[in-house]
Amino acid sequence: MQKIGKQTIQFNCPPSITSTACIVGPKEAQGPLAKYFDKCLEDEFWGEKTWEKAESKIIKETVNMVIAKSGVPSSNIDYCFAGDLLNQCISSSFGLRDLNIPFLGIFGACSTFVEGLILSSIFVEGGAGNTSLCAASSHFCSAEKQFRFPLELGNQRPPTSQWTVTGAGSAIISKTGNGPFITNATVGKIVDMGIKDANNMGAAMAPAALDTLITHLKDTNRKPSYYDAIITGDLGHIGKEVVIELAEKEGFNIRSNYNDCGVLIFDKESQDTHSGGSGCACCGSVFSGYLYDQLKSKKLKKILLIATGALTNATSSQQGESIPGIAHAVSIEI
Amino acid sequence: MQKIGKQTIQFNCPPSITSTACIVGPKEAQGPLAKYFDKCLEDEFWGEKTWEKAESKIIKETVNMVIAKSGVPSSNIDYCFAGDLLNQCISSSFGLRDLNIPFLGIFGACSTFVEGLILSSIFVEGGAGNTSLCAASSHFCSAEKQFRFPLELGNQRPPTSQWTVTGAGSAIISKTGNGPFITNATVGKIVDMGIKDANNMGAAMAPAALDTLITHLKDTNRKPSYYDAIITGDLGHIGKEVVIELAEKEGFNIRSNYNDCGVLIFDKESQDTHSGGSGCACCGSVFSGYLYDQLKSKKLKKILLIATGALTNATSSQQGESIPGIAHAVSIEI
Repeated sequence: MQKIGKQTIQFNCPPSITSTACIVGPKEAQGPLAKYFDKCLEDEFWGEKTWEKAESKIIKETVNMVIAKSGVPSSNIDYCFAGDLLNQCISSSFGLRDLNIPFLGIFGACSTFVEGLILSSIFVEGGAGNTSLCAASSHFCSAEKQFRFPLELGNQRPPTSQWTVTGAGSAIISKTGNGPFITNATVGKIVDMGIKDANNMGAAMAPAALDTLITHLKDTNRKPSYYDAIITGDLGHIGKEVVIELAEKEGFNIRSNYNDCGVLIFDKESQDTHSGGSGCACCGSVFSGYLYDQLKSKKLKKILLIATGALTNATSSQQGESIPGIAHAVSIEI
Repeated sequence: MQKIGKQTIQFNCPPSITSTACIVGPKEAQGPLAKYFDKCLEDEFWGEKTWEKAESKIIKETVNMVIAKSGVPSSNIDYCFAGDLLNQCISSSFGLRDLNIPFLGIFGACSTFVEGLILSSIFVEGGAGNTSLCAASSHFCSAEKQFRFPLELGNQRPPTSQWTVTGAGSAIISKTGNGPFITNATVGKIVDMGIKDANNMGAAMAPAALDTLITHLKDTNRKPSYYDAIITGDLGHIGKEVVIELAEKEGFNIRSNYNDCGVLIFDKESQDTHSGGSGCACCGSVFSGYLYDQLKSKKLKKILLIATGALTNATSSQQGESIPGIAHAVSIEI
């Protein structure tokens, strides 16, 4: 691999995404992408006593599923990169504690899934191993409880708010395979434009998405039209519009081939999620389900996946802090 | 690089740790390693209004210091890996938001510093860049508030408890340099032996440290005596004794050359920290201060640094969960 431009890595022997898996909750099962998910749960608890334990079970079973689908014995998987939104990433560490695969915890808020794809690719192409696994989860109920208000309060959600996706996505990245291949990775910088509204994460993360998008295009000397689709992680309806407008101001027209996982996963009219989906599982499940299917069936041949994260917590909001954003991108081609 | 044995990476062109820096709090300044720290604070707030903001300032200034010491312009640093113990790692993301270096958030609880050394080494040797930075922080007051009880309560601490180090450590890892060099890395697995006592983290993490130690020795075909020193991250007095005993049962005598950063950083008799130090900054500051000095002056020529993490949080303890541990190791030689 080599670094090109300011922030982009070019893989000379692009690692292959050999399998993906995703499990989602009941609300996601009513959305337009339902048929692409491997498993849809009937309720938010999945037989567990708490939402946190349910989220751990979701990431655990998603990882078991991707391993089973890949046919690779877990003893042949060299590394696992995983993270989530819960304090100290307990969904991942409890869910994956019996996995018996060398584990590296990552935290990029909702950008975690793509951070995992990047680290997996670098480990595999760099020679640290042949096969790596990445996973990320989120859960509407555990996230609302932790970041906002108790669900029992029945609090009204402002129109700018997004709906944390319940679910997990996972992928296996291998030195060899038939693709789709990870050809480039652009590691994002933290971007903080001073937005303080914790109910408008899309707007807070949009400048980071734009920064990574433009850096990627300049580093690779590509136009937006190089890609069949440019997909951000969880900017939702508002953040998506912000990115389109900001990109236009910078001279990049992305109207025709840009979309966002948070826009794709829920139906705007019927599902009442306000500004769309969010959470680590938003990008994780939309990629592992819908986008991976489109790549495998060659309906999409070149995509740029830009996962976005809001690096904030409940305490920092209470202390009057703004919301730093980050976005990491991978180009995936077949 | 190549993988040797089960979990170990051998670097063919070992990356060099070209600079380190550390800042610690007032209690650490009274300990036996005070003279090795770059800066000792007079109080826990450092002019900030909250402990969280103080912790952010500590990691920010530590990173600024390591960059200044290295003489490398920050625009030439390709990646920053950082993490901490605060919910959603806000110490790192707020402290480093103006850094303008591509940022990858990591979470390994108190093993975070060594996780950063490993990822930096793999990025640099793999060809993703020439120079990488890693950092980790913790703060006694923000950690007590978040994980245990409000400090104002004046709660009694049980004898097995450890004292979270206030401070941060940071290192710059480069493709070229005069060493010390990172020659091997062993990525740990999550190990959960069912210990539930959140006031005895040393015992909870000791089995993970042992697992990584023995795996490393077997993978590299080395005896403990290969190293001038084997140093764990923050097992403290109790965890250290557990590791010595468990290692002996497995046929490895480490009594003569093994110690722990949590034992080294505070004076057992005079400082009343019970079982010793803990936190991301324990291993981070003891390595960046004391151990790096010993390596540069060749008083130690070969060390194995094994940072340990307890992958737990306040909610999981309340829900009756046990404490999964993890440990990552790097061998550092000059």
